[in-house]
Amino acid sequence: MKITFMPQNVTWEAEEGDTILQAAVRAGVNIDGNCAGKGTCGKCKVKILEGDLSECMDHHHRLSENEIEAGYRLACCHKVSDGMVVEMPEAETTASRKRRMVNLPEGFEPAAWVEKHCITVEKASLANQHSDEVRTAEALGWEDLRFSYSALKKLPRVLDEGGEITVTLRDGQVIDVEKGNTERENYGVAVDIGTTTVVVMLWNLGSGEMEEISAVTNPQGAYGADVISRITFVMEKAGNLEIIHKAVIDCINRAIDEFSRELKVQPENIYQFTVVGNTTMSHIFLEVDPSSLALAPFAPAFTAGREVAAGDLGLHGNASAQVYTAANIAGHVGSDITAGVITTDLMKCDKGHLFIDIGTNGEIVLTGNGRAVACSTAAGPAFEGSSIKQGMRAARGAIERVDITEDGAAISVIGDCQPVGICGSGIIDAVGELIRTGIVDKTGRLLGREKLEKKGVSEGVLKHIREDGNASEFVLYFSEDGKNDVVITQKDVREVQLAKAAISAGISIMMKEIGLTVETLEKVSIAGAFGNYIRNTSAINIGLLPKIDEKKIVSLGNSAGIGASMILLSERCREESETVAAQIQHIELAGRSDFQDQYMMAMMF
Amino acid sequence: MKITFMPQNVTWEAEEGDTILQAAVRAGVNIDGNCAGKGTCGKCKVKILEGDLSECMDHHHRLSENEIEAGYRLACCHKVSDGMVVEMPEAETTASRKRRMVNLPEGFEPAAWVEKHCITVEKASLANQHSDEVRTAEALGWEDLRFSYSALKKLPRVLDEGGEITVTLRDGQVIDVEKGNTERENYGVAVDIGTTTVVVMLWNLGSGEMEEISAVTNPQGAYGADVISRITFVMEKAGNLEIIHKAVIDCINRAIDEFSRELKVQPENIYQFTVVGNTTMSHIFLEVDPSSLALAPFAPAFTAGREVAAGDLGLHGNASAQVYTAANIAGHVGSDITAGVITTDLMKCDKGHLFIDIGTNGEIVLTGNGRAVACSTAAGPAFEGSSIKQGMRAARGAIERVDITEDGAAISVIGDCQPVGICGSGIIDAVGELIRTGIVDKTGRLLGREKLEKKGVSEGVLKHIREDGNASEFVLYFSEDGKNDVVITQKDVREVQLAKAAISAGISIMMKEIGLTVETLEKVSIAGAFGNYIRNTSAINIGLLPKIDEKKIVSLGNSAGIGASMILLSERCREESETVAAQIQHIELAGRSDFQDQYMMAMMF
Repeated sequence: MKITFMPQNVTWEAEEGDTILQAAVRAGVNIDGNCAGKGTCGKCKVKILEGDLSECMDHHHRLSENEIEAGYRLACCHKVSDGMVVEMPEAETTASRKRRMVNLPEGFEPAAWVEKHCITVEKASLANQHSDEVRTAEALGWEDLRFSYSALKKLPRVLDEGGEITVTLRDGQVIDVEKGNTERENYGVAVDIGTTTVVVMLWNLGSGEMEEISAVTNPQGAYGADVISRITFVMEKAGNLEIIHKAVIDCINRAIDEFSRELKVQPENIYQFTVVGNTTMSHIFLEVDPSSLALAPFAPAFTAGREVAAGDLGLHGNASAQVYTAANIAGHVGSDITAGVITTDLMKCDKGHLFIDIGTNGEIVLTGNGRAVACSTAAGPAFEGSSIKQGMRAARGAIERVDITEDGAAISVIGDCQPVGICGSGIIDAVGELIRTGIVDKTGRLLGREKLEKKGVSEGVLKHIREDGNASEFVLYFSEDGKNDVVITQKDVREVQLAKAAISAGISIMMKEIGLTVETLEKVSIAGAFGNYIRNTSAINIGLLPKIDEKKIVSLGNSAGIGASMILLSERCREESETVAAQIQHIELAGRSDFQDQYMMAMMF
Repeated sequence: MKITFMPQNVTWEAEEGDTILQAAVRAGVNIDGNCAGKGTCGKCKVKILEGDLSECMDHHHRLSENEIEAGYRLACCHKVSDGMVVEMPEAETTASRKRRMVNLPEGFEPAAWVEKHCITVEKASLANQHSDEVRTAEALGWEDLRFSYSALKKLPRVLDEGGEITVTLRDGQVIDVEKGNTERENYGVAVDIGTTTVVVMLWNLGSGEMEEISAVTNPQGAYGADVISRITFVMEKAGNLEIIHKAVIDCINRAIDEFSRELKVQPENIYQFTVVGNTTMSHIFLEVDPSSLALAPFAPAFTAGREVAAGDLGLHGNASAQVYTAANIAGHVGSDITAGVITTDLMKCDKGHLFIDIGTNGEIVLTGNGRAVACSTAAGPAFEGSSIKQGMRAARGAIERVDITEDGAAISVIGDCQPVGICGSGIIDAVGELIRTGIVDKTGRLLGREKLEKKGVSEGVLKHIREDGNASEFVLYFSEDGKNDVVITQKDVREVQLAKAAISAGISIMMKEIGLTVETLEKVSIAGAFGNYIRNTSAINIGLLPKIDEKKIVSLGNSAGIGASMILLSERCREESETVAAQIQHIELAGRSDFQDQYMMAMMF
């Protein structure tokens, strides 16, 4: 039965009994959910433009009467009817904006171990009855050259017509043979599987140049916003692991198919993949059960880097293509961190150097005094906008920056349009400004008008304060009719407070572990695109980052994607990544008796 | 549409448009053909007991009026109709008799590189957060242990319930994990793909004991009796390679499934396969185009031994099972010869030692004077009974031995029943006896009664001579009504003469090549079950074997199967087989100017 998703205008042949959510995931249309299809989070709300509205499945307590009347339904609780047309939430459709090209570190030398050589092979004769395989090796001047099985199967046909052929070599093995000269058609794909976004980068392995990059919303979002809810989904029913695994494989394949269409790159010419992600994403990518990561002691099934045939995973590429999944460090410190670390000089371990990746989990790596330690802190989704009243992703309409002056609050909005919510960098900035200006006190209390007046806060600022009984809120944006204001609530501030405390306590324990103080810290590297957007002073003001000179703070950009690309392009970087993962010592905060103390201490702003 | 094959009583769901032949091959019912389904050889004659007789496809010139009336049709030219019941030719149903167990050479030490160990793995804790993979390695006391992808996927589930587990190790890699103690369930399969018969042997890799053996007719017989007609079939149409490849894979899988049913062996516990066969069979088994083997210069696509994932071939076994196809020597000297050679002391090369495998091709390996050479001679199908008027396979009703005395001819028949034809060993024996008694002269002429009387041949023998114009024939068996006599014709003798001349000339050239004479030959090893059945004196009398002391002749039995099993059971034998294949120098007879001379000289009896 046909279903059409708008405004993407994607039509999909759904199975009888599929929910709209299931159909959307299979069709590759981005849709979110936090509750793994239980109908409890209400995030997958869609508007049914055409089709049967009657098949409600009793979860409409997440929808208002007006919404139900207007045709809104939860995609996870409503079955597809034939010919259905559905309008998807606007924010999601803009989330797949392309990111800027990846810049490899200066001085990086690509040295991919996939090579293509155009050669002419001697025809067999009674004087040289050597096999096709051996005559090809002779032409390359290479003894004992083995062919992969898929290359061997192609060989007789390719040699049959005579003339030039191109052989593809990897690790002393011929993995492909083609007619004519195809030396330039030598591609690899680096993938950074984020919980929220999947970044797929197409590289030319010969030239070391990036050909294209695609960043799309991780379709696993339909089964939960964070790793824990996705693991819960996996644990619910046999078969769910396969579903959520296939969702990310299909997502990568769609990016490859798009590259193929747009750039005329044949998937058969993709010979190598490198994949990084947090440990849960790494497990799900390989269809390895991640259940143990949801509960203490958080031991993963594997951490080591490994090679798997692309065909075994169903990835579109050459029949002999290999997928290398980079080494994870621990259950909640994944290969995205490993990849990020190799983009830096962190492992010199000669000075105090803090590496931090802020998200639902705040992963921290700290080096210095000849040691390297890492931990993961459960910051919760505040910095991703999820537990915040009007929080949203960094998409069109999100407030990403806030300045509080005597005149009031000035905001920057992604897309320069009317704001509809506030994203992670905006929350940090807003709370940072509220603290700097004393509107939020050290205990995290958003002060009322009376107290602020006493402190001499200007009228321009005071008018942003709205009081409701005991609690105050700060209005960032006043809409014309007052119905679409964007605010920061007391509860929002508390969420930020809990989140920053977790990360801050983690940093303190790491510092204690290797004997560093804030004064001896010489560098802070912020991983992820997030680092590009947060204002360092605000991050310091809320206590998320240690109080150090702003000049010592470096934003790494998409360090996981850059690292994945480096591993793809250089055998040396691959080895280095394995060394890094083995050398970094993981500290389990849940196992530290001093963590609760540090956490409580870090709670103050 | 359903079709039932009798007397096997196998019912199969055929596709619309399938011929009876196609359905039989897919259903795994043995059926022969020489012409690759062209309707010209008439070998695939079946009797339709129930079903539509009208869909003749015009090839019935191979059938008599009486046969057509009685419901006989060619399976390759008649389409299946729903509910059809077909009677298969009797000879074929008995061809899959089991052979005796394989005896490994004395002193052979199994040392398979698949090991199973039952261990207990420490549960993860906050004190030991190591991954499942690492904790398993710790329990084995083995650092840097890697898991295969399929084993990794099973690991979390297997460890989850605690208690003992069993890990399967191959080559420093864990390829399987199972709950409980399954150390004894450690199997490997050796396969000898003969052009006519596929032998599948199940071994316990732990104990080195054979568990079961199955010998079945190669279903590729439906597409041609010999390698050349099968290659022709492959060349006819894209897709035919896959068909004929799948036929042999399915055949092996059926044997495995039978083992599984009868012995309660789980295919998941089959970890290793070793496959040998002539070079064409090796190519088709791997679905590699063998076309170049049909025409000079007969260069194969590959000769080297190689490992392929069993899953890539669709073989039933563990998800990490590997298939090792042993090294071929040349286009028409295959890995069955390599495997046969390692069962002998041939490669000592210290004395004149001849190894010969008699079939449609006679493959010869000769060692001595520190050298090893091999060739293949096109003997034709006479020794397999194919170009002989009443020739047949070594099946029930075949004359396998002939003794000519003063009283006449005494015969031995397989199954001790009324003879219906004569098999390879019977032909050699019959012609050998005809030469010994002077009934056939040195030029190959089967003498007439008059000449034989003059030579004083007894009346008991003379009554076996039947003359028809110029040509004579020798009656081996007189049936009661005279309609079912079994005879050797003048033409049959000529076929044997051509066949033995090819092999004999090959031997002469090999001997010349390395400087040996019949007198310096110290051993002749005859490969194949064939060697068990032929009478050495007869083989010497017809000139198939050199005139040496019978005591120097050794029959190796199914040397290809024994060698395949040795390679399966011992890494050392596998290495040895690769060395053997590399050291034996192939001599292409078609490239030798002296071959025609030798051939003409060898023509005389």
